[in-house]
Amino acid sequence: MIQKVITVNGVERNLFVNAEDMLSKVLRNQLGLTGVKVGCDQGQCGACSVILDGKVVRSCIVKMKRVADGASITTIEGIGTPADMHPIQKAWMAHGAAQCGFCSPGFIVSAKGLLDSNPSPTREEVRDWFQKHKNACRCTGYKPLVDAVMDAAKVLRGEMSMEDFDFKMPANGSIWGSNYPRPTAIAKVTGTLDYGADLGLKMPEDTLHCALVQAEVSHANIKGIDTSEAEKMPGVVKVITHKDIKGKNRITGLITFPTNKGDGWDRPILCDEKIFQFGDAIAIVCADNEANARAAAAKVKVDLEELPEYMNALDAMAEDAIEIHPGTPNVYYECYNKKGEDTKPIFDGADVTVEGDFYVGRQPHLPIEPDVGFAYMGDDGKLYIHSKSIGVHLHLLMIAPGLGLEADQIVLVANPMGGTFGYKFSPTMEALVGAATMATGRPCHLRYNYFQQQTYTGKRSPWFVNVKMAADKDGTLKAMDADWSCDHGPYSEFGDLLTLRGVQFVGAGYNIPNIRGVGRTVCTNHAWGSAFRGYGSPQSEFSSEVLMDMLAEKLGMDPFDLRYKNIYREGSTNPTGQIPESFALPPLMDQLRPKYEAAVKKAKAESTDTIKKGVGLSIGVYGCGLDGPDGAGAYAELHADGTITIGTAWEDHGQGADIGAISTAHETLKPMGVAPELLKFTWPNTDKQPVAGPAGGSRSQVMVGNAIRVACENLMEALKKDDGTFRNYDEQVAAGKPTKVEGNWTATEGTHCDPETGQGKPFVIYMYGIFMAEVAVDVNTGVTTVEKMTLAADVGELANKLTVDGQIWGGLAQGIGLALTEDYEDIKKHSTLAGAGLPYIKQIPDEMEIIYADSPRKDGPHGAAGVGELPLTSPHASISNAIYQACGARITHLPARPEKVLAALKK
Amino acid sequence: MIQKVITVNGVERNLFVNAEDMLSKVLRNQLGLTGVKVGCDQGQCGACSVILDGKVVRSCIVKMKRVADGASITTIEGIGTPADMHPIQKAWMAHGAAQCGFCSPGFIVSAKGLLDSNPSPTREEVRDWFQKHKNACRCTGYKPLVDAVMDAAKVLRGEMSMEDFDFKMPANGSIWGSNYPRPTAIAKVTGTLDYGADLGLKMPEDTLHCALVQAEVSHANIKGIDTSEAEKMPGVVKVITHKDIKGKNRITGLITFPTNKGDGWDRPILCDEKIFQFGDAIAIVCADNEANARAAAAKVKVDLEELPEYMNALDAMAEDAIEIHPGTPNVYYECYNKKGEDTKPIFDGADVTVEGDFYVGRQPHLPIEPDVGFAYMGDDGKLYIHSKSIGVHLHLLMIAPGLGLEADQIVLVANPMGGTFGYKFSPTMEALVGAATMATGRPCHLRYNYFQQQTYTGKRSPWFVNVKMAADKDGTLKAMDADWSCDHGPYSEFGDLLTLRGVQFVGAGYNIPNIRGVGRTVCTNHAWGSAFRGYGSPQSEFSSEVLMDMLAEKLGMDPFDLRYKNIYREGSTNPTGQIPESFALPPLMDQLRPKYEAAVKKAKAESTDTIKKGVGLSIGVYGCGLDGPDGAGAYAELHADGTITIGTAWEDHGQGADIGAISTAHETLKPMGVAPELLKFTWPNTDKQPVAGPAGGSRSQVMVGNAIRVACENLMEALKKDDGTFRNYDEQVAAGKPTKVEGNWTATEGTHCDPETGQGKPFVIYMYGIFMAEVAVDVNTGVTTVEKMTLAADVGELANKLTVDGQIWGGLAQGIGLALTEDYEDIKKHSTLAGAGLPYIKQIPDEMEIIYADSPRKDGPHGAAGVGELPLTSPHASISNAIYQACGARITHLPARPEKVLAALKK
Repeated sequence: MIQKVITVNGVERNLFVNAEDMLSKVLRNQLGLTGVKVGCDQGQCGACSVILDGKVVRSCIVKMKRVADGASITTIEGIGTPADMHPIQKAWMAHGAAQCGFCSPGFIVSAKGLLDSNPSPTREEVRDWFQKHKNACRCTGYKPLVDAVMDAAKVLRGEMSMEDFDFKMPANGSIWGSNYPRPTAIAKVTGTLDYGADLGLKMPEDTLHCALVQAEVSHANIKGIDTSEAEKMPGVVKVITHKDIKGKNRITGLITFPTNKGDGWDRPILCDEKIFQFGDAIAIVCADNEANARAAAAKVKVDLEELPEYMNALDAMAEDAIEIHPGTPNVYYECYNKKGEDTKPIFDGADVTVEGDFYVGRQPHLPIEPDVGFAYMGDDGKLYIHSKSIGVHLHLLMIAPGLGLEADQIVLVANPMGGTFGYKFSPTMEALVGAATMATGRPCHLRYNYFQQQTYTGKRSPWFVNVKMAADKDGTLKAMDADWSCDHGPYSEFGDLLTLRGVQFVGAGYNIPNIRGVGRTVCTNHAWGSAFRGYGSPQSEFSSEVLMDMLAEKLGMDPFDLRYKNIYREGSTNPTGQIPESFALPPLMDQLRPKYEAAVKKAKAESTDTIKKGVGLSIGVYGCGLDGPDGAGAYAELHADGTITIGTAWEDHGQGADIGAISTAHETLKPMGVAPELLKFTWPNTDKQPVAGPAGGSRSQVMVGNAIRVACENLMEALKKDDGTFRNYDEQVAAGKPTKVEGNWTATEGTHCDPETGQGKPFVIYMYGIFMAEVAVDVNTGVTTVEKMTLAADVGELANKLTVDGQIWGGLAQGIGLALTEDYEDIKKHSTLAGAGLPYIKQIPDEMEIIYADSPRKDGPHGAAGVGELPLTSPHASISNAIYQACGARITHLPARPEKVLAALKK
Repeated sequence: MIQKVITVNGVERNLFVNAEDMLSKVLRNQLGLTGVKVGCDQGQCGACSVILDGKVVRSCIVKMKRVADGASITTIEGIGTPADMHPIQKAWMAHGAAQCGFCSPGFIVSAKGLLDSNPSPTREEVRDWFQKHKNACRCTGYKPLVDAVMDAAKVLRGEMSMEDFDFKMPANGSIWGSNYPRPTAIAKVTGTLDYGADLGLKMPEDTLHCALVQAEVSHANIKGIDTSEAEKMPGVVKVITHKDIKGKNRITGLITFPTNKGDGWDRPILCDEKIFQFGDAIAIVCADNEANARAAAAKVKVDLEELPEYMNALDAMAEDAIEIHPGTPNVYYECYNKKGEDTKPIFDGADVTVEGDFYVGRQPHLPIEPDVGFAYMGDDGKLYIHSKSIGVHLHLLMIAPGLGLEADQIVLVANPMGGTFGYKFSPTMEALVGAATMATGRPCHLRYNYFQQQTYTGKRSPWFVNVKMAADKDGTLKAMDADWSCDHGPYSEFGDLLTLRGVQFVGAGYNIPNIRGVGRTVCTNHAWGSAFRGYGSPQSEFSSEVLMDMLAEKLGMDPFDLRYKNIYREGSTNPTGQIPESFALPPLMDQLRPKYEAAVKKAKAESTDTIKKGVGLSIGVYGCGLDGPDGAGAYAELHADGTITIGTAWEDHGQGADIGAISTAHETLKPMGVAPELLKFTWPNTDKQPVAGPAGGSRSQVMVGNAIRVACENLMEALKKDDGTFRNYDEQVAAGKPTKVEGNWTATEGTHCDPETGQGKPFVIYMYGIFMAEVAVDVNTGVTTVEKMTLAADVGELANKLTVDGQIWGGLAQGIGLALTEDYEDIKKHSTLAGAGLPYIKQIPDEMEIIYADSPRKDGPHGAAGVGELPLTSPHASISNAIYQACGARITHLPARPEKVLAALKK
């Protein structure tokens, strides 16, 4: 150990440190400065940025022995406090630059370092700075961050005032659709919001820290587990194996459809008989600290009999493949689309047909915050599990039997969390920490490092898709055939539902009268399939949207015109035979057309021998809801101090549950004239709020939003006096009337699709959009650069413009990643943020344009639809199409990494 | 465990807490808010005060289950920061209200609570508030705290500005003797100075937390120690007993004099064969946290054979008493005074003689911060020990052989620390944590709770004293006989030196030509004797000063006049035959006389049948230095940035090492014109600074101050150019000349006292003063109230007025405690701050007056003497004399608790 005297945020501190420990660990674990977030912990994300003697450094890769005695360090806590924010922090709020907020402290610290050295940067200098300092954001698409820095610089230069950042209430008294900042923004930009790992450091001292023993092969039988050596390691309190799990030791996949050949009980909490995929948890070591737990985990010996590894759907479907889950065929679910007439005769007689094979890969979610959770026995005798769950009530049901508890013996709570983008639809962490606390009786905290985040959380399921289309020579679509195989990894969790998305979204956006399709869910040994933004639409629509471009080429039509001809209009039906509830696509395309024509012209003009530019289009459609009659509950409770709690289990993983709840409630409560700051959102807790359903599938603003609307309406009704005014709290209590009322809402028009035909009304509200990508391809290197993205979007009324803008920019950025770089195929190579192809700021264009349709939804609360999935439905298709338009390389299998582009160019 | 959402310093925090845990523990251990200091941990000191929902509470007694969900808490960190201080914090600095600073955060938080509810309090309302909230301070005598609150209130009311608190540099450019604030003040008033227990919480995660297994009897043979059950307890890493100690397992008492019959190796680090006193350490349990360590310590079984307990000097001197340390007589040291002629003939022929028996008890130091320390193996292979040591170089030598290390294998470092008042002259903690780290190889942290602080740190040694005086009828002292027995507890540590103080200070202040005295050091089984402010003088001078009043009565003289007649003047010698270096007492008494006469008049006028008022006097004298030729070393080092390090091992336990070093250096460096903020003091570290000697005996300002002066003179000499100006750093380096120079100083005129006669020059500088106490005695209850204390002080030139004032007020307060309430006799009853008689604010008068002599010392740096001991030499004697003057109750055995006063009244 060494002693260092270091000035931290202006205060001289005596530090006693291990020379090899990283600065980030010392700041967080020893000084409690948890505004220093640790994401990748390997210098690739910048969440841990601090200013060390005037230089921005990633503190997770600065060893303490390299920190000079007498050094000066500034963390986010030293830049500004909630009561005294720095202009950068105010700008961050005003621009909605903190979505999940996990990267915000690092970015703000980095921006401070920039503005300290360059008070008047250009936008490109800001982007260069964040690129150089590896500040990564997965939520925002980077654009609002640059906006914020530019404005903060203006304030620092005296060209703007801090007050300019303050929200100004519009004359109509409504925050609906405004730039009202998220309630959580202050805490996020000041580093005072404690995320899971921060809370883990602030637990009582008897808390145990856990480490997993994990599979290092992808398929094997377990012959034995020897924990004896590990148990003797320093600080170890217990080593937990499947023998210690009290229940079924399975997380149920909650089989949605009876035709599923599995029973859903395929996923062990801790592996007992078999290893099904790399990273599978075999044991949990509980120790006094994480380092000791990890050291001991390395000493657990697992005796394995290795089995053939089926690392993709095709291999697992091979005739000689053994059953990964013995007794259940590897192809365990099939679904069908039978819309309209039999398509064979139509294809046989069609003017033009076109066919293609497509593949969208195993996109990793790449959150900046790795998975984390903790559990403890509450004084009420219940097992409390806190995590990044985005479906607390759902997860409770999924893990209770496996742990051997009744549902009412468990409370699930969603922590403040970094973005999940869907991977936290899977309750792995929840079951593990729950098991650890049950086995030890003590609070147990588990934090994945980034390798674990990559190798032991779900991924987007890769689909192999074949699509054929038939059209008249004028381009009118007549029929479509589709066949898709969904590699869902070894665990069935919603795999059937995901596969069904092919029925719903291959060819979505177009009126195709006749469709035949079959999709299958395939069990493999690669990473299990979990929810991911867009959920099935990126795989489905990539196929039909690239094929549409191929069809246009064959027809000699402009891809814009071919789409325009076939998009939903009065009389159209979607692939499940449902009449679209909005026909905003034609006017949106009308608005886009001149921009498209200008872009095509510009691309041609700017293309050179080596740099080829092109413009690509795609239509994107996704539903807002779970499948079928979705709904939610909420409550509104008036308090004596005039505040009103808007109680929901709407999980916020950065998409804005807080602002969604407050905006919806405020708009509903307008007759009462409640100031928005009096409305309080809640952190989801299964014991405290009614079922709201998971925060995924762009359903929450519609489902939970409607429940909030109803609750607020009910509250007003309860408070209303005869004269039309409202009782205050004291009056209400005196009147013996309730101060807390519930609200429930169900999309009663929704129906599950028919299992034989795929026809039905799975969603009552959809989002629609058309993407336009402008790319430049270096034909010598194969490197594609997206120069601009445009999305003409129909997402109903905007609940909050800052948030909707931010969701779209962030989704577009993920689309660019999906198109060009992101993958999780090679377990080793793709196990880091950078290795898996996370886009840094320079990969994402500063130019991103959004055109909003004026298209309020009848069934949306105050006209809103959802938004989150739309920008990731098919942006990658527009990019692939743009690459083709630029250079003639048709990329049908993503990602379009340079070598693939070069290979396609050679064809 | 339970979850609470609590707003802490304006930030909403999710907290996971054990319902039975105290708020203080959660704030410190879980949230890292170490500005919340924990002193007594039982609601008696207020160091942990926070504002909870608008009310000031002592967080150490607020269970988390009592903190409401949604509560709001303000700690010192939320009141102001170093960059943005609250007016109370600025006022605290400006008034020198933070001495050791340990109680400052609690006081400031409490004051905030007061001013929030009462913006215009009177001084008495401030005092009532601190009394009610049990805010205890052991350093300041409370007066400057009230001053600070009054001024802060003015600022908050707009009657003063924050700038009024700023130090204004005098025209002469000198901070010497000014109110320049201590360099450590900002950190102290903002709660950002980490004391030992704070650092213990901020150590790397592999740090072990220790608990002691301690004796619960006072004298026993050890037959066996069974650690087996403890070793199996949760979190336990090792249980250490004497068998694990590598060296002699003894802390040496560093025998000063050859006539001592002991060898100094009497004190075990961990008891092996015997228990010598209650609290003796038998084993150390090292665990992952303190709670686990303490739980396991309770499981260690010690098999004892109890022996007779000798709980005072008289019992231990009894003929049938067994030797506590077999082989060494219980009376192991004697010293003598033989000044002038044989006194027997003088007594036989004297006009008047007087004799008395006196007892000053086992005064506990009652620091607000209990003892704490930690150790670790440095990466340089050395054992680092950090503690509240006030003698780092000395302690290193005292513990190295016991641990089995060479001195150069250990580094001792003094942490920022709360007041010690001398108890940290004993290196108990240092040896214990050192042993723990040697046995485990890991960092080890040990924190006493208040029971341990009381029962296992040294105390002032009680003396039984008999004094006789002979005088002419005009009051001229002719001779004195004295006999004193010093109960030094079981450990010899400087016991001989302490006993010798009887030779030097019984009768000090007066020219007594003939003295015969004998003192003896007695080994007992009560708390070992450690250094305590005044060190021997409170016992010595209480005897002679009360006896002087008895003599005055017998002579029919006013006690003022008797003293005035006999105080040191030209031609006088002190008890060791030394000519005083200052004759400031007569002019001081001249200044005091009208005040005395007015006070006497006032007391008479205000006395009633039940409340009797009186005025008492006493002369106080103490030397500045260790015994004999004391000295120190220092260095001054110029840096490239223009700062100059004033490098010394001058330990700061609140007395002001920081300001002493900077003031002395600044005054010396005046020719160079260095701004005071460029001068940096150092935290003592045996590897980094030369030997400075311990920070005790009011020696540091003289010894270390002179070393600093010489170092600064040497630096100026080294930097001086031919033209009389000074080279800057770059020029000095370019000239190949040193930037770091040492300075050494030794009081060469000092000599040890002759062992046969006690004659010599043990100190080259003394402090002198006359105390005047004004008291009111309730003759029905026996309760004594000190209404005013005045000290006319000769402490040479003041280095810093804020600090000297503060030292005097604090010393007077301790004198009031010593006189009236403080004791550590009954191990159980006196084991808490309140039980041991700590004076709260209402026991200390708001009226405390200081009259300074203009009396620069030739041998003091810039004329300074010391100051710390003077106010605790004999204030208790003036109070005892005042009680007598008030009501005729002669208290010769302290403390003068009500029952004792009542008993004396009945005589």
